[in-house]
Amino acid sequence: MLTENWKELADKAVDIYEESVKKTLELFPFEDPKTLEVFNSLPSARGKTVTDFGNPAKVPIEVYLESLPDKVKEITEKDPAELLKELKRGTYSVLEVLESYFHAALFASKLVNCVYEFLPVEALAFAKALDAAFDESKDLPLYGLPISIKEMIPFKNRPITHGSLCYLDRVVDYDAEIVKILLAKGAFPFVRTTNPQSLMMLECESYMHGRTVNPFNSDLTCGGSSGGEGAINGIHASTVGLGSDIGGSIRCPAAFNGIWGMRSTVGRLPCADYFSCQLGSESILSVTGPLTRSLDLLEITMKSIIDSKPWLVDPMCTAIPWKPVEFNKKIRIGILHTDEVVTPLPPVARALKEVESKLLNLVNVELVEFKPFEHQKAMEIISSLYFEDGGADTKSTLTATGEPMCEQTSWVLSKDAVKPLAVPEIWKWNLAKQAYRKAYLKHWLSYNDAEGGELDAVIAPVFPGVAAKHRTAKYWGYTAQWNLLDYPVLVFPAGKIDTSLDKPDTSYKPLNDMDKFVYETYDSAESFAGAPVNLGLVGLRNTEEKLIEIGKILRDL
Amino acid sequence: MLTENWKELADKAVDIYEESVKKTLELFPFEDPKTLEVFNSLPSARGKTVTDFGNPAKVPIEVYLESLPDKVKEITEKDPAELLKELKRGTYSVLEVLESYFHAALFASKLVNCVYEFLPVEALAFAKALDAAFDESKDLPLYGLPISIKEMIPFKNRPITHGSLCYLDRVVDYDAEIVKILLAKGAFPFVRTTNPQSLMMLECESYMHGRTVNPFNSDLTCGGSSGGEGAINGIHASTVGLGSDIGGSIRCPAAFNGIWGMRSTVGRLPCADYFSCQLGSESILSVTGPLTRSLDLLEITMKSIIDSKPWLVDPMCTAIPWKPVEFNKKIRIGILHTDEVVTPLPPVARALKEVESKLLNLVNVELVEFKPFEHQKAMEIISSLYFEDGGADTKSTLTATGEPMCEQTSWVLSKDAVKPLAVPEIWKWNLAKQAYRKAYLKHWLSYNDAEGGELDAVIAPVFPGVAAKHRTAKYWGYTAQWNLLDYPVLVFPAGKIDTSLDKPDTSYKPLNDMDKFVYETYDSAESFAGAPVNLGLVGLRNTEEKLIEIGKILRDL
Repeated sequence: MLTENWKELADKAVDIYEESVKKTLELFPFEDPKTLEVFNSLPSARGKTVTDFGNPAKVPIEVYLESLPDKVKEITEKDPAELLKELKRGTYSVLEVLESYFHAALFASKLVNCVYEFLPVEALAFAKALDAAFDESKDLPLYGLPISIKEMIPFKNRPITHGSLCYLDRVVDYDAEIVKILLAKGAFPFVRTTNPQSLMMLECESYMHGRTVNPFNSDLTCGGSSGGEGAINGIHASTVGLGSDIGGSIRCPAAFNGIWGMRSTVGRLPCADYFSCQLGSESILSVTGPLTRSLDLLEITMKSIIDSKPWLVDPMCTAIPWKPVEFNKKIRIGILHTDEVVTPLPPVARALKEVESKLLNLVNVELVEFKPFEHQKAMEIISSLYFEDGGADTKSTLTATGEPMCEQTSWVLSKDAVKPLAVPEIWKWNLAKQAYRKAYLKHWLSYNDAEGGELDAVIAPVFPGVAAKHRTAKYWGYTAQWNLLDYPVLVFPAGKIDTSLDKPDTSYKPLNDMDKFVYETYDSAESFAGAPVNLGLVGLRNTEEKLIEIGKILRDL
Repeated sequence: MLTENWKELADKAVDIYEESVKKTLELFPFEDPKTLEVFNSLPSARGKTVTDFGNPAKVPIEVYLESLPDKVKEITEKDPAELLKELKRGTYSVLEVLESYFHAALFASKLVNCVYEFLPVEALAFAKALDAAFDESKDLPLYGLPISIKEMIPFKNRPITHGSLCYLDRVVDYDAEIVKILLAKGAFPFVRTTNPQSLMMLECESYMHGRTVNPFNSDLTCGGSSGGEGAINGIHASTVGLGSDIGGSIRCPAAFNGIWGMRSTVGRLPCADYFSCQLGSESILSVTGPLTRSLDLLEITMKSIIDSKPWLVDPMCTAIPWKPVEFNKKIRIGILHTDEVVTPLPPVARALKEVESKLLNLVNVELVEFKPFEHQKAMEIISSLYFEDGGADTKSTLTATGEPMCEQTSWVLSKDAVKPLAVPEIWKWNLAKQAYRKAYLKHWLSYNDAEGGELDAVIAPVFPGVAAKHRTAKYWGYTAQWNLLDYPVLVFPAGKIDTSLDKPDTSYKPLNDMDKFVYETYDSAESFAGAPVNLGLVGLRNTEEKLIEIGKILRDL
C-alpha cells in the first residue's frame, strides 16, 4: 500500500491513461489524419486532472455516432454476436476488428471517460496470434472478440486499485481465472474500464480517473461500480465486458446505459481472485457477470465460461453445468411494481406496465402480481453486513495517501448500519440473513400455481428511476435485495424515457425520507432526457439459463 | 437460556430419558416377561446420575446379541435396505418393525448409553398411520423405516440442547426441514441420540446424558459429536441416522463403530435449522449426513432427500439433482498413507495397505499414491475459524447454569488458535482458507492422468487409529482437513483390529508433540481389541454419487 501524497499518485494514474492512449494511437493510428483532428477536438469528459470533470457533450453518444469514421462503425455498430460469426467466417480479421474497437473506445473514452487504461500491446499480440492460427482457432466460441474488463479484475503486469490510489503499486503477475478462461475461448481484453473509489458506489467517480458520465445524457451518472463497463458497452465501444456486483454494481450500470447485464448466482462464475476492500469478508459475497448490448453474446459468454468447468480452478464455484432450458408449460412471471420502500418514478412505473401489457398478449406466458416481502428489512440486514469493520479498511485506503473521500463513499459509510461489528453481532446479522432468505423463498414459492407449477421469474425495477443525476444514486434497495438473497438477475432494456409521458406525479406523498429524496430528484422528465429505461428479471438461485430464455421473449416483445 | 443450577437440570434430563423409557415399555411392552428381567439386569453404561458412567460390559455388542430376543433380531439384524424391501412388500407391518427397533434400542441404550430420548408416542402414531395407508404409502422410498436423529436436530415439542443443560427450555414447535422431508418419504424418527457438550468433541460426553461408549469395547469412545448415532447404528439398533459434521462429527463416530457415514458437501443436504453453539458463524459451515451399517440405505436416504429438491425449503442448499454415476474409464483412486502431521497407527496403516492391494487386483481401477499438501496449515486455519469469538458463546452456555466444562471441551477451547478474533483477523483467516482451497484443488488435479482423466477419489485415514480410549480423541486432522476444503467423504468399514498383526511400532520416532501423544495412546493392540477399522473415501465437491459407486466396489472387495 502506497503512502505518497495522493496528488502525485493521481498524476501517475493520469500518466498511465495518457501513455496508454499514446501507445494505442502509435500501434493503431487513425487511417485518415482528419480523424485525429476530430478526436482531439471532441468535448472531453476528462479534465486536466482527476478533480476536473472536463466539459462533456450533453449527449455524448450523438457526438460519438456523428464523429466516428464510418469504417469503424461498420464493425462496432454491428451486433457483437453477429460480428462474432463474421470473425469465425473470416469476413474480418481479428486485427481489423480490434483496430475498430480501439478507435471506437478512444472516442468513447474521451466523450464519457469510461476507460481506465487501454491495452494496445497485449491486445495486438493476442489478435496477431489468433489471426495467425485462424484455422485452428476459428471454432473457439468467442474467437477474436476484443472485450473490456473492469479495472478491479486482475490482469497481468498491471496494478489493481479498484479506484484507490494507494494500490497503484499492487501489480499482479497473473490474470484472473475468468480472464484466463476467456483467453482460452478466443476473447481477449483490450481495455480496462473505470470503477469508483472503493467500489461501494452506484456511480463512477474516483481520484484515479475523475468521473465517468452517461453516454445518453452527461448530466446523469453511468452508474457503478462497473460504471466504465456500463458506459463503454452502452455507447457500443466494446463487445462485452466483465463487471462485479455486491449491491447492484453490474445491474445499475447496465440499466443506466440501456444494455443487458447479468448478476449471476454466487458460485456460477469464477471471481474469487477479484480485488476489493473488505477482502475475506464472506457474509455478503460479490459475484461477476457480463454487461453487453447483445443478449446472444451474453449467453455465449456465460455458456463458454461455465462450459470450461470453472469449479476446477476456482473453489468458490459450484459444479453446475450450463443447461439450456425448455419450457413445457406456460412461463409464469411475477411483476413487482414496487418494493413498498421507494416508489418507482414515472418512467420505470410506465415501463413495468408496458412490459406487463405486452406480455399479457402472449399465449405462452402467465402473469401474476408479485408483492414485496419486507424489503426494508433486507436493506437493514445487508447494510449491516457490507462493512463488518465499520468501514475501517475502506478508510485506511484513503488515509494512507490523504486521498479525499468521495461524497458517495462518505455517504455510504455514514449510514446508521455501518459500524464495527463484534463477532456476536456478525453472527446475529448472518442469522437474520438466513432467516430472511428462508422466509423469502417461501414467499416466492407461494406464487406457484394451483398445480404447483413454479413461478419462473419476477420482473422488477433495477433502480427507482432511470440513470440518476450525479451524486444522487442513493437507493440500492432494488438491487441489494437480490444480493442478500443471492438470486440472479438479468437486466434488460425496456425503452427510453418519454418526456411527454413521464411527467413527475405532483400529487405523490412520499412514504419515508428515502422515498422523499428519490421523489425530489425527479424534478422533471426533461432533466433525464435521453435516458434508457431498463428493468430486471429475477430468478431463484442458479436459474441463469432460464432468465436468458425469458430474456429472449422480452427482447422480441 | 436457563439459569437454574446445573445439577437440577441434569436431574431433569435424566427424568426425560427415564420417562421416555417408561413410556416406551408401556406402549411397546416386551412380549415375554423374562425379557424385562434380562433388560433390567443388563450391565448399564448409564449411572445413577450423569456424572456416573455406570458399569458397562467390556464388549456391549456381545451382550446385546446374546440377550436380545431372537424375534427382535430377526428384524433388526436384517440389512436395513433388505428390511425396507420387506416393509414395502408387506412382509412386516411398520408397527412390528418399530416394536423390534424400540426393543433393540432399549437394550442398546442401556448397554452403551446412545439414546438421549425415545419417541414412543410420536413413532407409534407415524407407524399406525403408515400401516393404515399401506396401499398408498408403500411406494414411498423409505416406507416404514424407523430412523434415529441426533439430539441437536429440531424435532417438534422437544427441547434442543446440543448437550448443554441451559437449553433444556429451548422447545421447538417445528421439525427440521430434513425431518419433514424424511417423514414425507415414509421414514420417521423413533429415538433422539446422544451428543456431547457443545458438540465440539470427537467423543460423546455431556451432563445431559453421561457418556456413550463404544459397542465393541467400552473402554473406547464411540466418537462424536454424532456419538449416539455411531453407537446405535454400530450395534444395529437403528436403520439409519442423521448426524452433523463440522470437524469430523459424522465420520469419526461412523469410523469408530464400523459403519458407513457420509459428510456431504455444503449445500447438498438441508441442515440450516440445526442448533449448535456459534450459530451464525459462516466461515466454516456444518453439514449433515447419514450414518448406517447399510451402504444401500445410505444411498437411498441421500437420493430420497435430494430428490425432494431441498433447495426449495432450505436456501443454503444448491439445486444439484441426484445423478447416478457411470464410469466409462478406469476409476482413478489416490491413496493417502499419511498427512505427514500424525502418522497413522498400525491398524489403520495396515487397512490402507490391504485395501490398496485388493484394489490393485481390479482391472477397472487405477491407483496412485496421493501426497498430502500442507495439512498442518489446514488445521491452523480451521482451528482459528471454529471459535471466532474465542469460545465465549460456548462458555456462556455453561456459566449460565454452572455446568462444569468437560475435559474435552476445555481442551479444544485451550488451543492456541482459539482466541476472540477482530473482524480483520476473521477476514485474514478467510483469505487463508480461500487460498488454501485453491492450492489444494490444484494439487488434487495434478493427479489427473496424462490424458487429463480425473482423479476420482482419495482413500485416506479418518483418524490416526481405531476408536480412541476415552478422553484421548484429540487429533482432528484427518477429518477437519476436508471440512476446510468442503470435500465430501464417505467413511467405509475396512475390517477390525488384529491384535496379532497390529502391534505398536516400538522403533517409531514421533514427528511432533501431537504425533507423540497419539503414538503413546497406542500402548498395545489388546487395549483396542474388537475395534472396527474404517477408512474414508474423499471426493471433490458435490461428488457424493461417485463416492457411493466407488463405495460399492470397496464393500465388495
